[in-house]
Amino acid sequence: MTRFTKMHGLGNDFVVLDSVRQSLELAPAQIRALADRHFGIGCDQVLVVEPPRRPGADFFYRIFNADGSESGQCGNGARCFARFVRDQGLTDKERLTVDTRDGTLELAFLPDGQVRVDMGAPRLEPREIPFIAAARAGVYVLPLATETLAIGAVSLGNPHAVTLVEDVDSAPVAELGPQVARHPDFPEGVNVGFLQVLAADLVRLRVFERGVGETLACGSGACAAVVCARLWGLLDERVQVELPGGTLTIEWAGGTAPVWMTGPAVRVFEGEIAL
Amino acid sequence: MTRFTKMHGLGNDFVVLDSVRQSLELAPAQIRALADRHFGIGCDQVLVVEPPRRPGADFFYRIFNADGSESGQCGNGARCFARFVRDQGLTDKERLTVDTRDGTLELAFLPDGQVRVDMGAPRLEPREIPFIAAARAGVYVLPLATETLAIGAVSLGNPHAVTLVEDVDSAPVAELGPQVARHPDFPEGVNVGFLQVLAADLVRLRVFERGVGETLACGSGACAAVVCARLWGLLDERVQVELPGGTLTIEWAGGTAPVWMTGPAVRVFEGEIAL
Repeated sequence: MTRFTKMHGLGNDFVVLDSVRQSLELAPAQIRALADRHFGIGCDQVLVVEPPRRPGADFFYRIFNADGSESGQCGNGARCFARFVRDQGLTDKERLTVDTRDGTLELAFLPDGQVRVDMGAPRLEPREIPFIAAARAGVYVLPLATETLAIGAVSLGNPHAVTLVEDVDSAPVAELGPQVARHPDFPEGVNVGFLQVLAADLVRLRVFERGVGETLACGSGACAAVVCARLWGLLDERVQVELPGGTLTIEWAGGTAPVWMTGPAVRVFEGEIAL
Repeated sequence: MTRFTKMHGLGNDFVVLDSVRQSLELAPAQIRALADRHFGIGCDQVLVVEPPRRPGADFFYRIFNADGSESGQCGNGARCFARFVRDQGLTDKERLTVDTRDGTLELAFLPDGQVRVDMGAPRLEPREIPFIAAARAGVYVLPLATETLAIGAVSLGNPHAVTLVEDVDSAPVAELGPQVARHPDFPEGVNVGFLQVLAADLVRLRVFERGVGETLACGSGACAAVVCARLWGLLDERVQVELPGGTLTIEWAGGTAPVWMTGPAVRVFEGEIAL
């Protein structure tokens, strides 16, 4: 029997497995079986915590999508990873340096139990996003089937387009989301954020994720939205972002400073399963 | 911490709780939290196993929907209930008499690990279904918005309409299912089965459940489909029913004999959660 922990960050949910104290080598079919919500445990992604692969790092962790493929980093998953290694007694440090397939994360535990994640510096050059545009700009006009859409574009490890709306509840997420997400000017696709600014320190956001659809909470999408709206002069350095699954705090000093994301990580239950 | 077992019968999945050895009184909000697939454990229904309330019964068990409401019996849940009380050592009997809110079930363990459930005698009188019809018939013609549909109608504790199709894969389940399920001639709504007969002992079935939509496997729907097609002279007494989630064996001798349903019940994992 293999022990696991079921966790979530704003409803983005994870099966977390300890491959430090037990040796695990999961085939894609096993990942799919674990992630199945009716025949398995059910989750958006499976996180596998491993020993560090280099001096200076505290852990390595791998991220698998529900379809069995290996994935890059995810802000909600990073917070759950951090909560897991503390709860399981795998570390007692206040700050962690963690490697993933896509790079290194810096994580910090806050006194209230929340986790703060260094999401890296935003990349705004079109070729880094990647986004086909004549030159870098604060606002781009994207032609769609029946209209044009004013967007900001930024990468936080994955590409994001952000558009302002008056009211997220009535925003045309289901209509425009797929059109933008698969727009030919974003050669690798793009996640699409619909942002309503309530105050300079408070926004509401819905995100249509490429290849997935609308999600409860996209951590990098919250960072992207704050970066764009900061560049438009609408926001302070520290902003509460209300997503359908809950609230994140995003901080960005601007320029080449990293974006910090702070939010909850919840352990739902402990379990044992035969793999 | 409360121990639970996650189980499924053909993908119809359950959180099963032992209220024999531990005392549990769950509020509807707790049921909803347990059943939530992102913030909780996730399941179609929660089963709570209790001591018997009368001599002659082995157990009582309660069935809660994911919305927190209490429900009547469910064939897939009955098999999982039976597997649970055996696996947990709560009984070593080969046959069980079990009370639920809606009546008594007879359950038997088969040598191959499958569970056989007495689903009771089918009720075919229109007022017992309930169904508004001039008189009992083998086939009724139901007027829909743009066509008429030939159906059989039967109750197995809950109302079912069954219609024959040439190919379940291309059957208009999403289009016709909602129209029939909410048809005014079924005052309490109706579950709608789309049945393809491959041989006298083998059929394929998709079921649109009232208030739910299409499901992976509806046990009573499989019984209803076999009863109707038996009455139409198409089937033998013992029939394999292939549903999207897996295969059930349905037996019906006809008349006032009970319908027997045999199928798997799978324990997926054991867990502990704070309620």
